Amino acid sequence: MSDDAQTPEGVRPEVAAAVGDWRAYVEAKMGFRNHWYPVRFSNELAEGQLITLQVLGEKLLLKRIDGKVYAIRDRCLHRGVPLSRKPDCYTKDTITCWYHGYTYRFQTGELVNILAVPDSRLIGRRKIQSFPCQEAKGLIFVFIGDMDPVPPLSQDVPPGFLDDDVMILGKHRVVNSNWRLGAENGFDALHIFIHKDTTLRHFRTFNFPIGHTPLPGAVQVVEDADGPKGVIDDFAQHKPIWDGVIDGRVVVRGPRSQQVQGTSASVGTSIWLPGVLKVEQFPLPGLTQFEWYVPIDGKTHLYVQTIGQQVQTDEDRQDFASNFESIYKPHGLDGFNADDIWAREVTEPFYADDYGWVDEMLCEPDTTILEWRRLASRANRGVQTPQDLR
Amino acid sequence: MSDDAQTPEGVRPEVAAAVGDWRAYVEAKMGFRNHWYPVRFSNELAEGQLITLQVLGEKLLLKRIDGKVYAIRDRCLHRGVPLSRKPDCYTKDTITCWYHGYTYRFQTGELVNILAVPDSRLIGRRKIQSFPCQEAKGLIFVFIGDMDPVPPLSQDVPPGFLDDDVMILGKHRVVNSNWRLGAENGFDALHIFIHKDTTLRHFRTFNFPIGHTPLPGAVQVVEDADGPKGVIDDFAQHKPIWDGVIDGRVVVRGPRSQQVQGTSASVGTSIWLPGVLKVEQFPLPGLTQFEWYVPIDGKTHLYVQTIGQQVQTDEDRQDFASNFESIYKPHGLDGFNADDIWAREVTEPFYADDYGWVDEMLCEPDTTILEWRRLASRANRGVQTPQDLR
Amino acid sequence: MSDDAQTPEGVRPEVAAAVGDWRAYVEAKMGFRNHWYPVRFSNELAEGQLITLQVLGEKLLLKRIDGKVYAIRDRCLHRGVPLSRKPDCYTKDTITCWYHGYTYRFQTGELVNILAVPDSRLIGRRKIQSFPCQEAKGLIFVFIGDMDPVPPLSQDVPPGFLDDDVMILGKHRVVNSNWRLGAENGFDALHIFIHKDTTLRHFRTFNFPIGHTPLPGAVQVVEDADGPKGVIDDFAQHKPIWDGVIDGRVVVRGPRSQQVQGTSASVGTSIWLPGVLKVEQFPLPGLTQFEWYVPIDGKTHLYVQTIGQQVQTDEDRQDFASNFESIYKPHGLDGFNADDIWAREVTEPFYADDYGWVDEMLCEPDTTILEWRRLASRANRGVQTPQDLR
Ligand code: FES
Ligand code: FES
Ligand code: FES
Ligand SMILES: [Fe+2]
Ligand SMILES: [Fe+2]
Ligand SMILES: [Fe+2]
Ligand SMILES: [Mg+2]
Ligand SMILES: [Mg+2]
Ligand SMILES: [Mg+2]
Ligand SMILES: [Mg+2]
Ligand SMILES: [Mg+2]
Repeated sequence: MSDDAQTPEGVRPEVAAAVGDWRAYVEAKMGFRNHWYPVRFSNELAEGQLITLQVLGEKLLLKRIDGKVYAIRDRCLHRGVPLSRKPDCYTKDTITCWYHGYTYRFQTGELVNILAVPDSRLIGRRKIQSFPCQEAKGLIFVFIGDMDPVPPLSQDVPPGFLDDDVMILGKHRVVNSNWRLGAENGFDALHIFIHKDTTLRHFRTFNFPIGHTPLPGAVQVVEDADGPKGVIDDFAQHKPIWDGVIDGRVVVRGPRSQQVQGTSASVGTSIWLPGVLKVEQFPLPGLTQFEWYVPIDGKTHLYVQTIGQQVQTDEDRQDFASNFESIYKPHGLDGFNADDIWAREVTEPFYADDYGWVDEMLCEPDTTILEWRRLASRANRGVQTPQDLR
Repeated sequence: MSDDAQTPEGVRPEVAAAVGDWRAYVEAKMGFRNHWYPVRFSNELAEGQLITLQVLGEKLLLKRIDGKVYAIRDRCLHRGVPLSRKPDCYTKDTITCWYHGYTYRFQTGELVNILAVPDSRLIGRRKIQSFPCQEAKGLIFVFIGDMDPVPPLSQDVPPGFLDDDVMILGKHRVVNSNWRLGAENGFDALHIFIHKDTTLRHFRTFNFPIGHTPLPGAVQVVEDADGPKGVIDDFAQHKPIWDGVIDGRVVVRGPRSQQVQGTSASVGTSIWLPGVLKVEQFPLPGLTQFEWYVPIDGKTHLYVQTIGQQVQTDEDRQDFASNFESIYKPHGLDGFNADDIWAREVTEPFYADDYGWVDEMLCEPDTTILEWRRLASRANRGVQTPQDLR
Repeated sequence: MSDDAQTPEGVRPEVAAAVGDWRAYVEAKMGFRNHWYPVRFSNELAEGQLITLQVLGEKLLLKRIDGKVYAIRDRCLHRGVPLSRKPDCYTKDTITCWYHGYTYRFQTGELVNILAVPDSRLIGRRKIQSFPCQEAKGLIFVFIGDMDPVPPLSQDVPPGFLDDDVMILGKHRVVNSNWRLGAENGFDALHIFIHKDTTLRHFRTFNFPIGHTPLPGAVQVVEDADGPKGVIDDFAQHKPIWDGVIDGRVVVRGPRSQQVQGTSASVGTSIWLPGVLKVEQFPLPGLTQFEWYVPIDGKTHLYVQTIGQQVQTDEDRQDFASNFESIYKPHGLDGFNADDIWAREVTEPFYADDYGWVDEMLCEPDTTILEWRRLASRANRGVQTPQDLR
């Protein structure tokens, strides 16, 4: 639309200035830098396999070498071409640019040779950008940033996710909205209104109010120096709304069962930096849903949905895997969350020109979302900018 | 193309400044605000039906309730989503946002409830933007603006359109050009050159010059305080050109009949704010063509074509309707005007970057078009800007 | 991407400033103005035929009249419409705009009449932009600019191209990259690495190193006042690299024959203003490849590929034509150069936002390319800008 000036982060200065204590959040259109992000499941990258993907605007090449995953930028230092256009891997550890032979070591990014100019003084003195990788719970995490030393992964995942006895299964898909609309959709207790007709009902007895407002004390901010930073919303301390009333008439009712306790389908949610949600006792009691909204660029995110369950035995593991395939994935991650996906996508245009952040008209329960925006603005390790992609 | 600075209206400042006394016209890329525009025919909106459409950049929801048409902005106050994505109409008079239950009354725009937060203090204190609607002659008109009181419709339609004994029939279609190129194409007496081969010839005897130039006195500006504002071009006071000459040789001739009088297929045209043309005695004698160029956004307009005829009896009405379907629509609105549509669409790129307004090379008869630009710049009630859409 | 301010030439000021002595080259996104460019082969434009094409952003109408080719801008002076949308050619020498009858003479651009306004004072006093045309060696050249007098074609083609006994055959196609990436791909001696697997090998015995570095004296800049301006790279003064080594191991080898002399498939290349390459003894000994990278707009170029051979007799001519169709075109211009085309296209994004010119990491042999950038910046006759298209 308009071609106004932009901040270095690529947002409207008037909007960034107007939001006060969550300015960094508005600027983080492409996500927060110097954090760990899951990008694929481990079983999607076999030994010796090379894949490309994009995260926080960075186009990456990932390769698994002797079991370990390495990531470098998919752009030759010489003249900027994608190495992946015609990958020349003459040795296990290296990739050679198809254009003039600049050759990089995956483990370090080092320019180890230029095949066509073997005596160049650049050799051994230059590095392509490389990114730390770590696998945990069957996911490949990449650290997008240049912080040294790299903070531990445990600071960037929700509490409980890395627990020894928790088994994680999941899936991912691309969503056409900014990552923040994913995060806010997930953490938004109020949006339960959209899930009224979920098929999950056939698989459990729900208490499903049409809304619920946090009472004082429901929301807790976690900001310990050495742990994950997040905001917790405890649904036990919510006031549920069961009847929707218009002009004095009840027009819609949330299903309420005497068989189950609690005010909602979950007992509570929490959102953590750099953009990952934990939903407790969901999609069924005994399960935890962990889901990431990983920025791909400013307009799309990778929705990484996982479910965790405590397992002790191989039989536990097999049962969980079987239920995941037959129930949790089709009716939870696909069925229930399908509504979340289109909701984020149709919210995108309002925020895409930044004005949405000041033109929105939040209501009282949305203070939980504001807590998240403030926490994220305070506790992030940096904002990704277009200049970081040069 | 270029990313130069823009005026608040979204045009190049150097161009707006250069055109002097028709600056507002150049700025009115998205149309003139605080005017009435036809958007659909009445029979396109049944009782209880909900439709969406766009006009002057505004995305609207229209609903007919107890016979009357109401229009509100199709964007929830809360987080900006389109209400139309999943319309929840729990009562006849209201629409509830599918996301968190913000509920609006169509007649007033009032936020009457938030289903998920029934005790919010926003309720009853906020309004979604609503737009006055009025039906006349089988058309639904919407007033795009916030003027109070709203001026009468009669000031925004050509003289004669609302006459009691006039029956109106028509059609509409989207044209891929700015609305001003539609208006200028219509009012441009010179462009008769493009219609040389119209099939309308088979339905009447035409005097069809290849051009005609207004003599002094042909053009009259109407600018009464309480009536419609427009420019009238009287073809009786034109000098017709019958022969096209190149290098001394006649290369093309306009058909000229001894059977009919006058210099052209019509006896005259006039153009009125906010962008509506009246063509007298056209497409056949005894008829009047009224047509609107309604801005959809800066790049497209809704071409609302209507034909009016004086009718006294039901038989008159039936004859008119029958002729409209069999002759006037296929050979006039479709056949004859098809050339106008592609002409506007291929003119679009030259004006799209604003430079066309200063780079064009008008000739003498184009002074009629300049009169229109000046009148429109003086007499409009406001210019629609991107900020009006926030 | 970013909406930073731009220079009048449409590039980032910070980048233009940073490159110092080749600033004009960076600015010449749409090419150098006031030069001759080949746009079609002569046999693509028959007597009386009208064609449209785009070069340096200019949309042109070309017509052949009495054997001679004329070019005018395909945009009516009146209201900017493309004349080609419905070409009205009432006389051999003129084209009449379909909209209101502005009529232009092809030979001069003169506005000779306005059919609908035959007494307009514009007639005979205005001209549509026209462009000098010249045919040579079976190619139609157009001079894009307004220099007076027009420099001779011989200054804008490589030495030897116009030689009497040289016969030229060729083809052209559109490539989705800026023209400079075409020029640099062609002149870049190092990129021989990409052609390792060319099928041309089946038609001649190659010495095909994987790279070769110019020794002192290999590169010569030609900048005589009255002749073509270019940079010559003599492969006889290169040090060839035959083995590609990674971590001490030979991983790829260039084929080396005892049957032939020289270090490469060609004996040398040279690049000339305004962007044309000469490859000697290529694609086979006895042939010369001349190829142009003609800017269409800032993002695409017309790749005009030709091959020249000295011919004395009609039999020579027929042999050359026969070999061209059966070998040189399919295996040289199509097969061999196919790799060059995709290489340019995938290089485009890195340079499209201008930052590539400062972010690239050139190596020692790339000094030849820097010589070309400097020469082009010094010796061009002007930079084409968006304003030149108004
Ligand atoms: S672009 Fe990669 S080696 Fe030249
Ligand atoms: S976006 Fe409409 S109620 Fe929340
Ligand atoms: S636009 Fe060509 S004559 Fe009017
Ligand atoms: Fe949800
Ligand atoms: Fe017309
Ligand atoms: Fe090549
Ligand atoms: Mg907005
Ligand atoms: Mg223009
Ligand atoms: Mg407003
Ligand atoms: Mg770049
Ligand atoms: Mg010019």
